Amino acid sequence: MAQRLTTIGFDADDTLWQNEAFFQMTQARFAELLADYADPDHLAARLEAAERRNLGHYGFGIKGFVLSMIETAIEVTGERVPARVIRQLIEAGQEMLAHPIELLPGAAETVAKLAPDYTLVLITKGDLLDQERKLAQSGLGELFDAVEIVSDKSPATYTSAFARHGTGPEAAMMVGNSLKSDVIPAIEAGAWGVHVPHDLTWTYEHAQPPVSAARFAKIDGLAALPGLVAGL
Amino acid sequence: MAQRLTTIGFDADDTLWQNEAFFQMTQARFAELLADYADPDHLAARLEAAERRNLGHYGFGIKGFVLSMIETAIEVTGERVPARVIRQLIEAGQEMLAHPIELLPGAAETVAKLAPDYTLVLITKGDLLDQERKLAQSGLGELFDAVEIVSDKSPATYTSAFARHGTGPEAAMMVGNSLKSDVIPAIEAGAWGVHVPHDLTWTYEHAQPPVSAARFAKIDGLAALPGLVAGL
Repeated sequence: MAQRLTTIGFDADDTLWQNEAFFQMTQARFAELLADYADPDHLAARLEAAERRNLGHYGFGIKGFVLSMIETAIEVTGERVPARVIRQLIEAGQEMLAHPIELLPGAAETVAKLAPDYTLVLITKGDLLDQERKLAQSGLGELFDAVEIVSDKSPATYTSAFARHGTGPEAAMMVGNSLKSDVIPAIEAGAWGVHVPHDLTWTYEHAQPPVSAARFAKIDGLAALPGLVAGL
Repeated sequence: MAQRLTTIGFDADDTLWQNEAFFQMTQARFAELLADYADPDHLAARLEAAERRNLGHYGFGIKGFVLSMIETAIEVTGERVPARVIRQLIEAGQEMLAHPIELLPGAAETVAKLAPDYTLVLITKGDLLDQERKLAQSGLGELFDAVEIVSDKSPATYTSAFARHGTGPEAAMMVGNSLKSDVIPAIEAGAWGVHVPHDLTWTYEHAQPPVSAARFAKIDGLAALPGLVAGL
């Protein structure tokens, strides 16, 4: 191996803990609340269109998601949605923001096992306060050397994060469930990119795996990461 | 002077650029839209109560403000607010998020003047993407050595920010319009705290000035900062 690995970046949502499941539960509630006005498929498509349209304004996270649900509810009902329904959407968002985190299998053990030997950096999108809350609740905060809550994940994001907190992207690895946000831009920055697929991944995060990249790997779960790292 | 100053922290909203003015304009629009349901004073009190109640969920920033406006609109109308009004509140929030920044007098000159001799750190609350957008638009991004977008401003925030990006709080100064968030916790962390009052400051940020603190100063505008720093 040309360059020793010194630094490992972890994505948070759907890599260390469940996230998309809570979005989908809220979206199911949204479909129920608006069942009189639109069928679920149509509604899901309209909501996704609103989310994508609003990304430049809202960025990623629950608050923007709730605002996009409200906007979609108004749109699909031709402004006839009752205020009571909108109140319920706001409450659903607050429940998401208060929901206890659920660590994914192997997350705690893997992070604890790698922490003594590597610089660990959490690199995540989403609402600032919400991500801080989840990290605090996870009990893993002390094991990370740095936390970067970022508005987007581009190759430049990884170049700068791994330069700031490690010894540059060539000596770093990024681990996450999103090919589009975690794996591909990290490889483009010169790092290793490790894909840990999650059953539920937002369609926005879908992408083709970089099958030919030398620094790409795919593992079934985080428990396989220490072995992969040891074998590099 | 016991310890040389190496690092200067700047607050962003209402210190480098206008912010509260846009919140108040949107709040005036909110009062107009709900004029049939509640008088402006009552409405302002209810909105502020909602904002404070929701801070633990939403943190600071425009998205949380819009969600609190919608919640208040539903509340004060007993769920009778028309969806059209809620749509207009969402649009008002999107306008805030797209509004060009307006630098405050002396901001650009002062930051440019201090940048060669001090480590400059921007330390700000608010929505991540929104603050990044405003910093990029300000043209001042390159002059700062580091940017910290934080969910709250406590003494611990300043201790860690000035340790990470400078030589510790004793050799640092924090400059901002909020006594509560910028000045008092920075002084408590051991740094200098410089108050630059702004005509419009959210009541949440009000506090008594620490008149007796040796490391407290108040200036009329940012143009006076280089002189203050030189005279320390």
